[in-house]
Amino acid sequence: MDLAKYIDDLTTRAKRASRQIATLSSAAKDQALLTCAHIIEDHRADLLSANAEDLEAGQKKGLSKSFLDRLQLTDKRLAGLCSTLRDVAALPDPVGEIIDGTVRPNGLRIRRVRVPLGVVLVIYESRPNVTSDAAALCLKSGNAVILRGGSDSYHSNRALHVCIQEGLRAASIPETACSFVETTDREAVGLLLRADCHIDVVAARGGKSLIERVVADSRIPVIKHYEGICHTYLDAGADLDMAERVCVNAKVQRPGVCNAMETLLVHEACAQAFLPRIADVLRSESVELRGCPRTREVVPDMKPATEEDWRTEYLDLILSIKVVGSLEEAIDHINTYGSGHSDAILTTDLQAAQRFTREVDAAAVYVNTSTRFTDGGEFGLGAEIGISTDKLHARGPVGLRELTSYKYVIEGDGQIRQ
Amino acid sequence: MDLAKYIDDLTTRAKRASRQIATLSSAAKDQALLTCAHIIEDHRADLLSANAEDLEAGQKKGLSKSFLDRLQLTDKRLAGLCSTLRDVAALPDPVGEIIDGTVRPNGLRIRRVRVPLGVVLVIYESRPNVTSDAAALCLKSGNAVILRGGSDSYHSNRALHVCIQEGLRAASIPETACSFVETTDREAVGLLLRADCHIDVVAARGGKSLIERVVADSRIPVIKHYEGICHTYLDAGADLDMAERVCVNAKVQRPGVCNAMETLLVHEACAQAFLPRIADVLRSESVELRGCPRTREVVPDMKPATEEDWRTEYLDLILSIKVVGSLEEAIDHINTYGSGHSDAILTTDLQAAQRFTREVDAAAVYVNTSTRFTDGGEFGLGAEIGISTDKLHARGPVGLRELTSYKYVIEGDGQIRQ
Repeated sequence: MDLAKYIDDLTTRAKRASRQIATLSSAAKDQALLTCAHIIEDHRADLLSANAEDLEAGQKKGLSKSFLDRLQLTDKRLAGLCSTLRDVAALPDPVGEIIDGTVRPNGLRIRRVRVPLGVVLVIYESRPNVTSDAAALCLKSGNAVILRGGSDSYHSNRALHVCIQEGLRAASIPETACSFVETTDREAVGLLLRADCHIDVVAARGGKSLIERVVADSRIPVIKHYEGICHTYLDAGADLDMAERVCVNAKVQRPGVCNAMETLLVHEACAQAFLPRIADVLRSESVELRGCPRTREVVPDMKPATEEDWRTEYLDLILSIKVVGSLEEAIDHINTYGSGHSDAILTTDLQAAQRFTREVDAAAVYVNTSTRFTDGGEFGLGAEIGISTDKLHARGPVGLRELTSYKYVIEGDGQIRQ
Repeated sequence: MDLAKYIDDLTTRAKRASRQIATLSSAAKDQALLTCAHIIEDHRADLLSANAEDLEAGQKKGLSKSFLDRLQLTDKRLAGLCSTLRDVAALPDPVGEIIDGTVRPNGLRIRRVRVPLGVVLVIYESRPNVTSDAAALCLKSGNAVILRGGSDSYHSNRALHVCIQEGLRAASIPETACSFVETTDREAVGLLLRADCHIDVVAARGGKSLIERVVADSRIPVIKHYEGICHTYLDAGADLDMAERVCVNAKVQRPGVCNAMETLLVHEACAQAFLPRIADVLRSESVELRGCPRTREVVPDMKPATEEDWRTEYLDLILSIKVVGSLEEAIDHINTYGSGHSDAILTTDLQAAQRFTREVDAAAVYVNTSTRFTDGGEFGLGAEIGISTDKLHARGPVGLRELTSYKYVIEGDGQIRQ
């Protein structure tokens, strides 16, 4: 296989397809997505057997249990994946939306219209559902998509892609609107990331090292999600019952995801009252605690937290705890060590809430609730392709709207510039 | 001078300043801009003498007349530059704007709030006014700015920067909110473009080769303006009087700018009627014409247009002309050879106008008017830092709004995720 030629053909065809699907009707796109869901349901057996191939290879390779779990397809997961396809079909089409408009003094009528980005390259790791989720989101937003999944889920992804292509064909949409990179050769990724004349944006979804590699190699802008070092800050005078409930939820409900709390900051005024009780309840949930010196004065039997702890996304049942002297110290800590993902204040003080939301520099800033809510579905945006920790273009959940650009349309009657 | 240490200090301080100015009141920012305008007026003599130094060096170096013209400051240009500072002060502050918001079924109140990007690095060529324009736009949008101007305007830029710092000081705003790279060493640019931990976005303003170098070297996202290969398409049955007026304006009014027309596409149905008359009037305006074979059948005495012509931004009194058989052929030509900047259709046919605006992939798509209108001021957005030919983040004029990001602010009453 001549890899350079293969990638050039694939991306050229994707670019061409992007022009065709940019102007498809919502009805045609929705019909295609519903058909894809049907076809996936019809091919359940094929999909599970392709997945079994990946699982067997993964076991032989000695992949971790949690990795294999993420890789596994089940009837329930296939049903979930089909319901995402149907959910995306039910969302409003962002393409063609008039964002704003005006009439200028010289009579020019100007409107800003939402348009697709063009070609989206999605690079992801082991979860096969990303194959259909990403295809659905890109198609619905009028973008062509190139899927490059992890090599460990190659057979599962490819089998899902076959179903999607069948759905596109049935809806008379060019199959090249959704391409799948049919090789696990790593060099293919390098070639894709240099195809800036055919690909408009890269969405990278995976661990930190994957993202860093993509950013380093890419000539194309990357929508990235680095990591979620999320904080909860307990202000002086906060409601401790609510604080306990919210902290347990933020740390324990699903510790392996990006919006889980990694560091708890406690105002010195409530350290004595709160630290022993939260330590008890978190330990009963098997959470390992690591504290600053002042935390350990109150609850002595925990490991000291190091400088490294403040910078760590555990993605696990571990929590670092720090006592701070003031709201400012909490904000400083978050802006220094946080990753700009999701941070919360628990307080009854209006001014503290206002300062915190204004000064903490993160995609999502919470007052009196759990950081676990950072999610396209929870925000009412529908499915998402990831959560951006960038500030440019998209910040926070990346859904249909974030997969679009806009153009200015200007209508006149022969106006000329003076 | 230890360049690496100098750049590290400069960018670290800019990052720190960005946190402070992100939450400044509009009144404080506007006051600073008005003060800067005053100070520039007071220092007219110093500014003109710094500029004379650059001009003299430029003449010795043999810089072109048009380059020296762009470099030159005059009383009139200084007045223009001060009026831009006052105009930006008068624009609404984008920071804090609530873009949208919702209450979720679980009672969470979510709003999306406009926030500054952080630190903006502006790399530009010879025009000294960019120094104060960029500083004004970045300050008003709550961003810290690092200015890196062309070495040929070093003394002019530095003298302007001294005035701006004086204005910031008078308004008690940290001077590090607007830094100027005090060296013409090229290696400084490389170091800045790798400072992705301190700089959030690069705005590159200059010729194509500058932009390409910046994009190739940068680890930081770049808002770029490549080139404006702008088309006007004359549809069958268009009003030829209006077409003549609009085409002359688009080509001749200011040929050296990015939104001037470079290629005229003419439907075969009006080639006989239109080409001789537009050729006459453009030639009377000293425009050199280059035509496709069918154009030269109608107007024989012109140079043939080569494949290269269709891809060229002349920025000069040169126009390439092509006869096309259909609207589709015109759209294809534009999407193949255009640069996604500004393209116009002149037509009386509603369906043709609709197809053109939907299918042409450009930042600004015009119906029955001149491409010369692509400009922040003409669009009612106020001053601009450039015109983006990207699709990600900002497309078209980059004004205050495009220098911002957003954050989600979520308020609850102890909600936890199920």
